[in-house]
Amino acid sequence: MELAAVCISQNKKKEGKMMHKKETILTGDRPTGPLHLGHYVGSLANRVELQKSCTQFVMIADVQALTDNFDNPKKIHDNVVEIVCDYLAVGIDPKMTTIFLQSMISAIPELTLYYMNLVTVARLSRNPTVKAEIKQKGMEESLPVGFFTYPINQAADITAFKATLVPVGEDQLPMIEQTNEIVRSFNRLYKKDVLVEAKALVPKVGRLSGIDGQAKMSKSLNNAIYLGDSQDDIAKKVRSMYTDPKHLRVEDPGSVEGNPVFEYLDAFGMDTEKIAELKAHYQRGGLGDMVVKKYLIEVLEHVFRPIGERRKVYAQDPGQVMGILLEGTKNAQAVAQDTLDQVKKVMYLDYILEQ
Amino acid sequence: MELAAVCISQNKKKEGKMMHKKETILTGDRPTGPLHLGHYVGSLANRVELQKSCTQFVMIADVQALTDNFDNPKKIHDNVVEIVCDYLAVGIDPKMTTIFLQSMISAIPELTLYYMNLVTVARLSRNPTVKAEIKQKGMEESLPVGFFTYPINQAADITAFKATLVPVGEDQLPMIEQTNEIVRSFNRLYKKDVLVEAKALVPKVGRLSGIDGQAKMSKSLNNAIYLGDSQDDIAKKVRSMYTDPKHLRVEDPGSVEGNPVFEYLDAFGMDTEKIAELKAHYQRGGLGDMVVKKYLIEVLEHVFRPIGERRKVYAQDPGQVMGILLEGTKNAQAVAQDTLDQVKKVMYLDYILEQ
Repeated sequence: MELAAVCISQNKKKEGKMMHKKETILTGDRPTGPLHLGHYVGSLANRVELQKSCTQFVMIADVQALTDNFDNPKKIHDNVVEIVCDYLAVGIDPKMTTIFLQSMISAIPELTLYYMNLVTVARLSRNPTVKAEIKQKGMEESLPVGFFTYPINQAADITAFKATLVPVGEDQLPMIEQTNEIVRSFNRLYKKDVLVEAKALVPKVGRLSGIDGQAKMSKSLNNAIYLGDSQDDIAKKVRSMYTDPKHLRVEDPGSVEGNPVFEYLDAFGMDTEKIAELKAHYQRGGLGDMVVKKYLIEVLEHVFRPIGERRKVYAQDPGQVMGILLEGTKNAQAVAQDTLDQVKKVMYLDYILEQ
Repeated sequence: MELAAVCISQNKKKEGKMMHKKETILTGDRPTGPLHLGHYVGSLANRVELQKSCTQFVMIADVQALTDNFDNPKKIHDNVVEIVCDYLAVGIDPKMTTIFLQSMISAIPELTLYYMNLVTVARLSRNPTVKAEIKQKGMEESLPVGFFTYPINQAADITAFKATLVPVGEDQLPMIEQTNEIVRSFNRLYKKDVLVEAKALVPKVGRLSGIDGQAKMSKSLNNAIYLGDSQDDIAKKVRSMYTDPKHLRVEDPGSVEGNPVFEYLDAFGMDTEKIAELKAHYQRGGLGDMVVKKYLIEVLEHVFRPIGERRKVYAQDPGQVMGILLEGTKNAQAVAQDTLDQVKKVMYLDYILEQ
């Protein structure tokens, strides 16, 4: 939430005067599963703030999700409406933010194909993010072309909307650099500043630990609390949470570092004084895990009960939710098409225009 | 022209009955220069025949041309209208053949992106055609991704129109195999026969020698007679043609093999008896090059004067020519979009349809 200041701080001074030019953000999610508290902390809460001061596009990256789920397209399809429900429930407002579906923006594949002429195979092979992900997914032997080339597809996503800010994790910085290389090559080659460079926006709170204490909350690790979880489920998950394994008796001193219960309190609690007191008490001994967990349940209920209730209402009306998505997609289509028209014009591919 | 029989011979027998299902052809040219007599022999004349019995799509492959001309898009642009003039002049009839512009078919990049998930980087690296072309163009060090992946783009071209026959040279057979691998992978993965396999159609007369006797007539070798050349220019080029270098005096015996003058007579002459006589006379000696060339000028005039005259009329009205191209492109857009809709449906990407 501290990111709200970014749009103002990034406003450009020009000729001594403060320019009140708004930044444009492109962000989004792969629809591979429901969103959880880790997404909330890492990105969703920021989007709710940023939409007030920036032009924001939120993309449901179904095409990108297919690059490593092409054999299970139904899973991707079914998660689309779920994710829009998550967005609307947390307060991403379709009046302020354009929520859209990647597979319906045909300008993106077109831009991707043109950009592919500007990047060498050698350059793609050096991309550290791609290298790491290939290794992680064990795809060295059978790397699909779509996965290998997805940094170029991502450059098309970003530039189609002329995004100037792209929220990413540290590990995704090479993706932004690849995008900007394409922007510079394109503008230099075709002698016009059609495309716009983007800056990475690295959130201060990047991720949340899982309820099992593992470094990352994730669906595949089965350690997540979902935005769609009921209050009972959330309470049950909190009660089962990993804490300090050396804190065996109430009177023992406990550790706050690496203790996800306190991490969650820091992330979601408003009463910083009370949290500081609890931490001190826990560290000197005499505070039981169940007491802290009970307080965390209250804190989470305060934040996530209204979100959960709104989510339930949206989930009951998938037609309305898809309507909102398609409306946003129509807006996004127009913006991306405008960029594509500009790109094709400088490439002398503006045949319709000349008729 | 002997290819006209193919469509009939390839008709499928099914359940004992002759099925009169027409073949669908996809063919085309990169608009990198004006078309010449080599194109006429190798492909244009066949298209004029094939359009009578097959559904034919002729693509002006401007996007593909950009993969190795991305730094000179104006050249590609300027050749588009020239090539349509060539097509119309030789008798490719827009009422029978759909002439269209690749860059205006947005379904092709979309299909390309989806197919990229079905091909591995290793598989692409093994493509013999790509390997040979990379070596020929000296691009080993700085191979653009767009050039590396163009077999996938080509598979999208072919399958977008559900082409069953694709005229190619022997060296392009691996491209058809790559396309059919994608077709089989896609249909198997998504459990429906959406895409159609294509057969290669290798023309009997693949190429024509240059006027300098080199094996291939080509713009870059500066040894071509163009469809747009005037009768005077054609005569001048024929008079300068390479013949048998050992045929120094009229009375010397001359060689017909490797002699482009006789090759052209075989390709374009109708009076096979007279040509046989000339060959025999030349071989036993006593027939001067200029006599044979004079006859070749007559032969070429018979075939190419009407083509040249029609071409001149079209070239004077580029608006009409572009109108024909855009009309064909609209038809092609509808066909390709229909295929894309079917592809997206089985991939669960049919969001508009479900509203």
